[in-house]
Amino acid sequence: MSPLPVPRGPHHRSSHTVWDASLEPLAVVASGDEVEVVTQEASGGGLRPDSTAADLASLRMDALNPVVGPFAVEGARPGDALVVDVLSISLDTWGWTALIPGFGLLADDFPDPYLRTSAVDSTPGGGGVQLLPDVVLPLSPMVGTLGVAPPEPGPHSVLPPSRWGGNMDIRDVGAGSRVVLPVGVEGALLSLGDVHAVMGDGEVCGTGVETSAVVRVRLTVAPGRAPRSPVLITDQRSLRLETSVATTGIGPDLLEGARDAVRQAIDLLVEERGTSREDAYLLLSLAADLRVSEVVDAPNWVVTCHVPRRLLAGWPHV
Amino acid sequence: MSPLPVPRGPHHRSSHTVWDASLEPLAVVASGDEVEVVTQEASGGGLRPDSTAADLASLRMDALNPVVGPFAVEGARPGDALVVDVLSISLDTWGWTALIPGFGLLADDFPDPYLRTSAVDSTPGGGGVQLLPDVVLPLSPMVGTLGVAPPEPGPHSVLPPSRWGGNMDIRDVGAGSRVVLPVGVEGALLSLGDVHAVMGDGEVCGTGVETSAVVRVRLTVAPGRAPRSPVLITDQRSLRLETSVATTGIGPDLLEGARDAVRQAIDLLVEERGTSREDAYLLLSLAADLRVSEVVDAPNWVVTCHVPRRLLAGWPHV
Repeated sequence: MSPLPVPRGPHHRSSHTVWDASLEPLAVVASGDEVEVVTQEASGGGLRPDSTAADLASLRMDALNPVVGPFAVEGARPGDALVVDVLSISLDTWGWTALIPGFGLLADDFPDPYLRTSAVDSTPGGGGVQLLPDVVLPLSPMVGTLGVAPPEPGPHSVLPPSRWGGNMDIRDVGAGSRVVLPVGVEGALLSLGDVHAVMGDGEVCGTGVETSAVVRVRLTVAPGRAPRSPVLITDQRSLRLETSVATTGIGPDLLEGARDAVRQAIDLLVEERGTSREDAYLLLSLAADLRVSEVVDAPNWVVTCHVPRRLLAGWPHV
Repeated sequence: MSPLPVPRGPHHRSSHTVWDASLEPLAVVASGDEVEVVTQEASGGGLRPDSTAADLASLRMDALNPVVGPFAVEGARPGDALVVDVLSISLDTWGWTALIPGFGLLADDFPDPYLRTSAVDSTPGGGGVQLLPDVVLPLSPMVGTLGVAPPEPGPHSVLPPSRWGGNMDIRDVGAGSRVVLPVGVEGALLSLGDVHAVMGDGEVCGTGVETSAVVRVRLTVAPGRAPRSPVLITDQRSLRLETSVATTGIGPDLLEGARDAVRQAIDLLVEERGTSREDAYLLLSLAADLRVSEVVDAPNWVVTCHVPRRLLAGWPHV
């Protein structure tokens, strides 16, 4: 097991795997305070750098996607906004990406478990993530899960996101970004985790490069400014400036359109690079971005899946 | 009526408003040839720079979205790909953006017609599009409609896109991009039109800055390489590098998610800038981008609507 990054000072690492307004806070902080947390990769310790696909079967679903918290913020009340500034993200030295049966945009096409673990090199000018022998991906660290306790009583699975945030998996939530959440209960009760070293818009296979991390955030209450649904402010540093090859999914349903675009991108990667279908799907989950190009020319909408051109160099060979 | 841009040489301007494999070609060209066309803005001459919302009622729906063509390409056969390189786009000096009743992502929220005409300044270092007194948008010219005749006989509306391309409204289709289309009939029969001076991913209100233009493309046949659905190659010059404020739509349906994200962005623009709801909706159709952030954390997906930060400077004021 590789060592986790070292926190700079006092920090928190106690995690939970349900949203629940009755959880005891790990700490009570003032508006404007910073907190540092050590997050665990999304298997909650079930996977290691030498794990194989067989180990996916033994993962405890109720241990997945642990988040550190909750943090109560003094004075936060329903109707307020909790402003979370992501100050820094330091990554562990390895991560994993998997196909988990029943999970992912193309769950029906990929029924079998599949796993890749990767070294994560965060040194300046370093190697990023070596997903495949011939594919290195630049790092774009982000916090996948960041949310507050919902006011509805009882435990709620940490896996789906909601208007209270949570497992939103928005890849723009990197260092330097700001997430504005509605406060649902007294003290807000913020928790976060599920850091990805790299992920594409859509996270199509269901996982990014899942890794442990040290995350530092500042928590600020904005009285009376609760947004209806989370809003984020991002400097777009996660945008990919490379030329892209964009496949399309065209039809009356955006979800099917996303599937069609991803399937065609898988086929291109398999044909052009000889990549296995499983690795192509993983690669798209990390390096490709889903965009809604058109959602008005009834009855057919257009979803595009933007794949870095360097992964499909030469295509279509004319 | 302002003058159209001047074509550089021989060109075509005869248009049609249905896809139909039985249309007589405007011209027959060899693989590798360039063609230059003069496209008409999407009202087909029904609107002018001094038009008002009342004029929208008199638009003939069967005259909307005219495309210039078709061009037959020698040797193109079903199963081949037609590779279209967009070489240049020269814009007219005005454009229009409208809410057309029954049309657009939020058609139910905006039942009334609304129109803005704008000057379009394409001079180097020029003003772009002055949509509102306090909002200037940089130009990002693109071809909204570009497609080949479908093999299914008879006329097909030019409004919805299909696997044969057409009104895809993908904003990456600017000068320097390449669109790879499947060929459906002998000669391919390519047509194009519907140029936008500016548009956001999603084109949420249903229109971009609709303008006439001179477009130059190169047409090349790639034998036996038909993609299942159009694929494009783009240098990403249309990506917005500005900091953005991204609203979210979180729930089990991507289309509703897109609506929720756009509605919240409209509310923010109205609250922060005092923009009318109609102008806010128009502004998002031109300047905001819809992305699929997460489509795997069942049962809730996340759509984000990225609005340039300069349009919401200061928010959330903490």
